[in-house]
Amino acid sequence: MRETRDAFHVAIPTHDLDAAYEFYVAGLGCKLARRYADRITLDFFGDQVVCHLTEMVVPEAGEQDLYPRHFGVTFAERANLDRLLRLCEVRKLPFFREPATRFTGLVEEHTTVVLRDPSGNLLEFKHYVDPRMMF
Amino acid sequence: MRETRDAFHVAIPTHDLDAAYEFYVAGLGCKLARRYADRITLDFFGDQVVCHLTEMVVPEAGEQDLYPRHFGVTFAERANLDRLLRLCEVRKLPFFREPATRFTGLVEEHTTVVLRDPSGNLLEFKHYVDPRMMF
Amino acid sequence: MRETRDAFHVAIPTHDLDAAYEFYVAGLGCKLARRYADRITLDFFGDQVVCHLTEMVVPEAGEQDLYPRHFGVTFAERANLDRLLRLCEVRKLPFFREPATRFTGLVEEHTTVVLRDPSGNLLEFKHYVDPRMMF
Amino acid sequence: MRETRDAFHVAIPTHDLDAAYEFYVAGLGCKLARRYADRITLDFFGDQVVCHLTEMVVPEAGEQDLYPRHFGVTFAERANLDRLLRLCEVRKLPFFREPATRFTGLVEEHTTVVLRDPSGNLLEFKHYVDPRMMF
Amino acid sequence: MRETRDAFHVAIPTHDLDAAYEFYVAGLGCKLARRYADRITLDFFGDQVVCHLTEMVVPEAGEQDLYPRHFGVTFAERANLDRLLRLCEVRKLPFFREPATRFTGLVEEHTTVVLRDPSGNLLEFKHYVDPRMMF
Amino acid sequence: MRETRDAFHVAIPTHDLDAAYEFYVAGLGCKLARRYADRITLDFFGDQVVCHLTEMVVPEAGEQDLYPRHFGVTFAERANLDRLLRLCEVRKLPFFREPATRFTGLVEEHTTVVLRDPSGNLLEFKHYVDPRMMF
Amino acid sequence: MRETRDAFHVAIPTHDLDAAYEFYVAGLGCKLARRYADRITLDFFGDQVVCHLTEMVVPEAGEQDLYPRHFGVTFAERANLDRLLRLCEVRKLPFFREPATRFTGLVEEHTTVVLRDPSGNLLEFKHYVDPRMMF
Amino acid sequence: MRETRDAFHVAIPTHDLDAAYEFYVAGLGCKLARRYADRITLDFFGDQVVCHLTEMVVPEAGEQDLYPRHFGVTFAERANLDRLLRLCEVRKLPFFREPATRFTGLVEEHTTVVLRDPSGNLLEFKHYVDPRMMF
Repeated sequence: MRETRDAFHVAIPTHDLDAAYEFYVAGLGCKLARRYADRITLDFFGDQVVCHLTEMVVPEAGEQDLYPRHFGVTFAERANLDRLLRLCEVRKLPFFREPATRFTGLVEEHTTVVLRDPSGNLLEFKHYVDPRMMF
Repeated sequence: MRETRDAFHVAIPTHDLDAAYEFYVAGLGCKLARRYADRITLDFFGDQVVCHLTEMVVPEAGEQDLYPRHFGVTFAERANLDRLLRLCEVRKLPFFREPATRFTGLVEEHTTVVLRDPSGNLLEFKHYVDPRMMF
Repeated sequence: MRETRDAFHVAIPTHDLDAAYEFYVAGLGCKLARRYADRITLDFFGDQVVCHLTEMVVPEAGEQDLYPRHFGVTFAERANLDRLLRLCEVRKLPFFREPATRFTGLVEEHTTVVLRDPSGNLLEFKHYVDPRMMF
Repeated sequence: MRETRDAFHVAIPTHDLDAAYEFYVAGLGCKLARRYADRITLDFFGDQVVCHLTEMVVPEAGEQDLYPRHFGVTFAERANLDRLLRLCEVRKLPFFREPATRFTGLVEEHTTVVLRDPSGNLLEFKHYVDPRMMF
Repeated sequence: MRETRDAFHVAIPTHDLDAAYEFYVAGLGCKLARRYADRITLDFFGDQVVCHLTEMVVPEAGEQDLYPRHFGVTFAERANLDRLLRLCEVRKLPFFREPATRFTGLVEEHTTVVLRDPSGNLLEFKHYVDPRMMF
Repeated sequence: MRETRDAFHVAIPTHDLDAAYEFYVAGLGCKLARRYADRITLDFFGDQVVCHLTEMVVPEAGEQDLYPRHFGVTFAERANLDRLLRLCEVRKLPFFREPATRFTGLVEEHTTVVLRDPSGNLLEFKHYVDPRMMF
Repeated sequence: MRETRDAFHVAIPTHDLDAAYEFYVAGLGCKLARRYADRITLDFFGDQVVCHLTEMVVPEAGEQDLYPRHFGVTFAERANLDRLLRLCEVRKLPFFREPATRFTGLVEEHTTVVLRDPSGNLLEFKHYVDPRMMF
Repeated sequence: MRETRDAFHVAIPTHDLDAAYEFYVAGLGCKLARRYADRITLDFFGDQVVCHLTEMVVPEAGEQDLYPRHFGVTFAERANLDRLLRLCEVRKLPFFREPATRFTGLVEEHTTVVLRDPSGNLLEFKHYVDPRMMF
């Protein structure tokens, strides 16, 4: 059982803290919890994402694949995914993968969209027709 | 605000689905939601972890660092971290980093432990003295 | 008062753990919590079902009656029953009793459907027009 | 995820509705929701138990085994199991199996007690040291 | 702030416990929690009503007024009042006052219906257009 | 199931609205929701009490009995009853019945205290050792 | 994370406690929690507002600006803002600023209305199309 | 009733957005939701505080009084106030008023501490012995 007061956390690499701030706070609407010299910590849809400053080469989008590594939120309510899509449109956050429906006709049917942060981390947001398939 | 019914999800690579099953379900006590030919999906402390089968070389533990990439749970209650530590001891899940307290005396003070799954993914579990620092 | 964190549990016989796994996890979408040599434990719609391996003769469906022994879930929301019916259709889980409405015009009016697992256990899923009749 | 407003239900046989009422309502403290000529429905710790009147021979306690068929509640809080044990003592409800701790030293460690209703149905109440093992 | 786990309770007189049982349990769909020689205790829409057996003369309905003494439930959702009205119709529970809307056009606008139990106790069920007016 | 957002309500007679205000708001710490010429409505521990102005003779305390008519709150937590007792002491609200424990040694064991408002209405506050006995 | 049981509180000046009572309790429908010689405390939409009696000159409405000082509630549900607007209309509470939509077409789009209490304190009530923008 | 998903908001003046950020985010541990040229919006203990940039003269601390204008949080749990006091000590946030207990021996007894932000806004944090006095 998911506990309301616990938090999932994911640590990801970033090559530029200011760019990460722009994407996650000014763009996606996450909240900045803390900023240190080498990281920023974010309230990401109620869970925690930490962007660690790292010497890294940002991969080209064309060289990346969604699998096996990405993270994101599965919304129980379709309206919350739609709000995110509207935000992407209004704030011109480009999609790594356009919104699409997968597994149409199966119980696992869901709508999914993928974003890409400035350091090449991939974020997937989903909504399942049958919320029991969220796991 | 974290929504009880939404789920965070993280997709990670694995070189062996059976080994992933052994570690996450038989070891950590996660629930198996679904198994496909190329992945297993897990109810991981109430959120979703998906292990994707990938051709990969498992890194040596000695060559790995906790930063910048790991994931896990921050427990609001200390007792839940203690239960996890007891589980690791009883089921002999080895630590990548032994339980330790960081930032003693600061507001950010927390206890942390790091595990390593068979494919070299790092899992961190934490508890903060002041739960407002969870983000 | 039903406590969110408690769990109801039901132990049932099975003649074949793999067949039980196929029906409950791959079919109904329950989560596998644990597997032992003589049983599997399931997160069954948030409560616990344990299938115990037993030497038994599986009864013929035609020889069985819904009464006096079955178990299942009464959904507060009609949409959850409809999702289950769709799952049965998509995944071709046969009905022991087709979906039907009972006690039409009475306060106890409800829609009910009955499934049968591979060992002949009967599962009933229901939805009442008036949720106070769930008990 | 267990939904607070849904209800698990179990239908069981009884040879005598009045005896069932005595055991479940006057004894265990369940609430009587409805009584019909052939059944009583109970609010059993927040879920539903239905006792169906059946022509049956009540088995001897000495001929019964806890496996594979029983039902009950797993309490998240130890205090709730202790309250039930106190109720059994005060109201002199005999145990089918005395309270005992199983799997001591394992993660699955739990305290369990088994009651037997007048028609020979077995009820198990449990509490796990680690609540993640409830499933 | 109303606490989910607390309960309001009201003790009322009755001249006949069986008649009270018929009205509240078989009629209104309340649950019988306990029965003693001189009282029955009820789970009345989640709160507690206790009917105490008393030597009393039941007043004539025509001699009674809703004020100053009655009790009941104010539903936050209109659908719950409608379900109660349907129950009254199906089970032929007569109204002391027919369903009516009071204070139309004011913020205090609400729909109300009044029942009368066999001992002459008056029960009012209400729904306000603006739920802040429930107090 | 008690719904958090619904409210129980009780209407009681009063011979003096100002005295009722003094007792319930300034004394017991209830909140005044609304005042009309002929009534005051109160948020009484999260539920609603309405005091209707009535021509009445206030009964002598010595002529009153707790049965069959009173109302109040059953607290799930003992601490909440203790806080109320402290409030009565500090604000010198006299008891109609001193705090006492009833049914010691039975499952129904509870602590109870009774107050009397200026119009002679009796209020009982209770706490049960076993919260399942609250109904 | 906002805790349900905590309360935000705001202390504001008032030149007249009776006028404050009229505006907040009889007008806006807040509940009066306590009244002292120099202040009233209010349950203001579930949080606390305290009006302190102060020697002050009430500013002219025409001389006031919404910035930088005001307070109010951001409703997650549009229906709650609409109910407040209806209340203002029915009870003839004048607007300091008429209901209006700001930032149309942006993610921050919201509907807002501003009231002014008798001492010139400004109250803003809002609803955002995207509830993540409430902060 | 306080709705978990609604938010209280308070707008306050600031003479320096960076100083406000330092005090509220780096100091008090609030989260930054958004930053514009003329304001920052904060997730302040789960509610919203907006600091508006204003041409203003910051008052001397010695010239200020807690009344009539301040804002803050009343914690239901004493531990949350203690955590805040520890944070103030560790991060050397000076008190405008040292922690103190007021109204000792009365029902209204509470512990209170007052901070002062760089623009002279006063913040009060409180905990009441009896949580019903929070309003």
